[in-house]
Amino acid sequence: MKKVSIGLIGAGTVGSGLIEILHSHQKQILERTGIELDLLQICDTNPARIPSYNKAAIVSDYKAITQNPNIDIVVELVGGTGIAYEIVKSALQNSKTVVTANKALLSEKGTELFQLAQEKNVEIGYEASVGGAIPVIRSIKTGLVANDFQSMFGILNGTTNYILTKMEEDNMDYAEALKQAQDLGFAEKDPTFDVEGIDAAHKLSILIGLAFNQKINLDNIPIVGISKLTKADIQSAKLLGLRIKLLGVCKKIGDKLEARVEPTMIPLTHPIASVRNEMNAIFFETSFSGPSMLLGKGAGSLPTASAILSDLVFYGSRRGQENLFREKNHFSQGSLVPSGENQARYYLRFKTVDRPGVLGEITSIIGRNSISISSMRQNESREEPVELIIITHEAFEKDVRNSLQEIDKKFDIIRGKSIMIRLEDLA
Amino acid sequence: MKKVSIGLIGAGTVGSGLIEILHSHQKQILERTGIELDLLQICDTNPARIPSYNKAAIVSDYKAITQNPNIDIVVELVGGTGIAYEIVKSALQNSKTVVTANKALLSEKGTELFQLAQEKNVEIGYEASVGGAIPVIRSIKTGLVANDFQSMFGILNGTTNYILTKMEEDNMDYAEALKQAQDLGFAEKDPTFDVEGIDAAHKLSILIGLAFNQKINLDNIPIVGISKLTKADIQSAKLLGLRIKLLGVCKKIGDKLEARVEPTMIPLTHPIASVRNEMNAIFFETSFSGPSMLLGKGAGSLPTASAILSDLVFYGSRRGQENLFREKNHFSQGSLVPSGENQARYYLRFKTVDRPGVLGEITSIIGRNSISISSMRQNESREEPVELIIITHEAFEKDVRNSLQEIDKKFDIIRGKSIMIRLEDLA
Repeated sequence: MKKVSIGLIGAGTVGSGLIEILHSHQKQILERTGIELDLLQICDTNPARIPSYNKAAIVSDYKAITQNPNIDIVVELVGGTGIAYEIVKSALQNSKTVVTANKALLSEKGTELFQLAQEKNVEIGYEASVGGAIPVIRSIKTGLVANDFQSMFGILNGTTNYILTKMEEDNMDYAEALKQAQDLGFAEKDPTFDVEGIDAAHKLSILIGLAFNQKINLDNIPIVGISKLTKADIQSAKLLGLRIKLLGVCKKIGDKLEARVEPTMIPLTHPIASVRNEMNAIFFETSFSGPSMLLGKGAGSLPTASAILSDLVFYGSRRGQENLFREKNHFSQGSLVPSGENQARYYLRFKTVDRPGVLGEITSIIGRNSISISSMRQNESREEPVELIIITHEAFEKDVRNSLQEIDKKFDIIRGKSIMIRLEDLA
Repeated sequence: MKKVSIGLIGAGTVGSGLIEILHSHQKQILERTGIELDLLQICDTNPARIPSYNKAAIVSDYKAITQNPNIDIVVELVGGTGIAYEIVKSALQNSKTVVTANKALLSEKGTELFQLAQEKNVEIGYEASVGGAIPVIRSIKTGLVANDFQSMFGILNGTTNYILTKMEEDNMDYAEALKQAQDLGFAEKDPTFDVEGIDAAHKLSILIGLAFNQKINLDNIPIVGISKLTKADIQSAKLLGLRIKLLGVCKKIGDKLEARVEPTMIPLTHPIASVRNEMNAIFFETSFSGPSMLLGKGAGSLPTASAILSDLVFYGSRRGQENLFREKNHFSQGSLVPSGENQARYYLRFKTVDRPGVLGEITSIIGRNSISISSMRQNESREEPVELIIITHEAFEKDVRNSLQEIDKKFDIIRGKSIMIRLEDLA
């Protein structure tokens, strides 16, 4: 039996879930794992929201926790990169193990914080920072430790996956689906952070570090959100046997990485295409294990608290031992394939006037940019603009971008901005 | 840095994969984890198959490994419940940590072996015993440690999943698909162990112990294989928006468990329906994390060796410390819902003569057994027998069995044995 004393800072959605599970399951966890998780102190700006059955001391200054010699693990659930950064730093400086769900903080300040943890020979647990309840961090860190990662495809944001599912299954507009997600609490009032792919990029950068052992700065990851997608794109994909998902992608190309967050078309038969509503999933290909996928709830009070608890048990059992796993990934800067130099197949959508010669003009621009066409479709239409769908063979991204730029200047035939969506031929 | 000395017993498919990865990735594993995995000794009945680059000492008596004071971890990859049992016992008696992929051994002798491990304060790693490369054992043991499991649905055998995929996608007969699986090395010459569900049941019993903290004897798990399934069943399922998978299932019903291995119809939209070919997956619902699924290769040299390596790192890092996780599940006998008392919807298929009154006779027998019909289909047919498909509402298994027994005695209208397949309305 080992007793581990915990200080919790932040008793919001996830924090209150943690208080609840610790209250109801402390004994079961002890029986299963031999570890007694003892919640000693809680710090929150709004102590009124701490449940009345709580028996931990409530403190108003986080330093009462981070500097308390009786605390083994500090759980930071404040979020953001402001005060949370001070809290984690203070905890590490006082040789506390830190457990956090803060992807923004780790994505932006990870290098510094893991460095400090190393100096103090303590560990940072962050299972809850990516994929909520999905045990993806531990699976990469311990389960696939002998593997070289070749590629990773993640549905890392539940809000956007919910919106895309509703657009496809219930034939909703983007705005309508967003509204529903907001009503159900899956999307914030200001949804920018989620729908523009920033949250997914934070998580992707953490996963890249772990899986590919290289640090990629968030600023260098190209990000495209889902707010420009239309019902037409979603339904076109369906007709092609494809589905659009907002994917965080990382691939090893020689000694460089290709990383991005963007809406991507994938075959309906692929397991990651079956991930619906607010669920998250991470699919990866590795040298020895082959293809694997982990799926689960990416957010929410209890799912995220469950991940925090798994860290408390794991790092609690290791407390006082040598920190063997060095998180070296945070210190070796990776390099990306230069923007536009990566290759893929693309779905292109054009809105054009309905007159002879249009098709020829568009396809010859595409051909001049060294892009070869795999298939093409123009639906019968009674009114302009007419919609033209082209699927390319593998092409350089920059060539596709150049084509679209050129085509979109043909104001005599084009009506509205043309759309390009990457297509991943996942087997 | 921590050095861990390993003795390998059994250098067959998985063992040679382990030798290969340790040879090529020892340094990388050390860099990532701080653990140096040193393969000291190998024991195999056929030393000729050990690769020439191997530098470990080759011994002919396994006791030279299990009794070697310099060995920390014994890897048992002999398989079966004969000599493998002696090896594991000897290793534990000599206070070695044991890492094994042997599901039959753990399923049949787990209680005794974990008891011995506990006495000696050492651990048994068995990540590779279920789901090959899928980190399912660690995920349940550490990732979902605070959760109560409500249900678990596993595709636990790659051979049968490959055969079912081929039957559906390539419209093959069972025999044809089995032949192809054998040609590709996915099925043994004598496939009984796989196709009759026994391998899946071994794995299910291990997972039940871990997830539900109860031991269920293998003999008490009802097992149905896939060898009686026809193209007709597979294609009928498809028309109903369903797919047949051989599932290992465990559900909590009050304070009892319902456990079985059998072909089961599940909705096409469910992630576990998307698991194709030789892939394995485990889907579970838990109290806090909600629904989760882990998918990956369930067998093969390198995927399984990768799981063995993850155990070597995990238990290597813990070597010499207190064995906190008590595997108590192996010692508390669980009880199952009595046979036939569980409820489900069913797909029923009858082969009948083509004359008035047949439908009435069949449906009235079903009705008399308190089973209510949800839908029914009889395809146009030019020749006898005619195929009648019935989907029931939720019904007791025993009532369905009784109906079929009664109906199958109506030799004047029935041509061949009727089929019942459970239907899981997974959301």
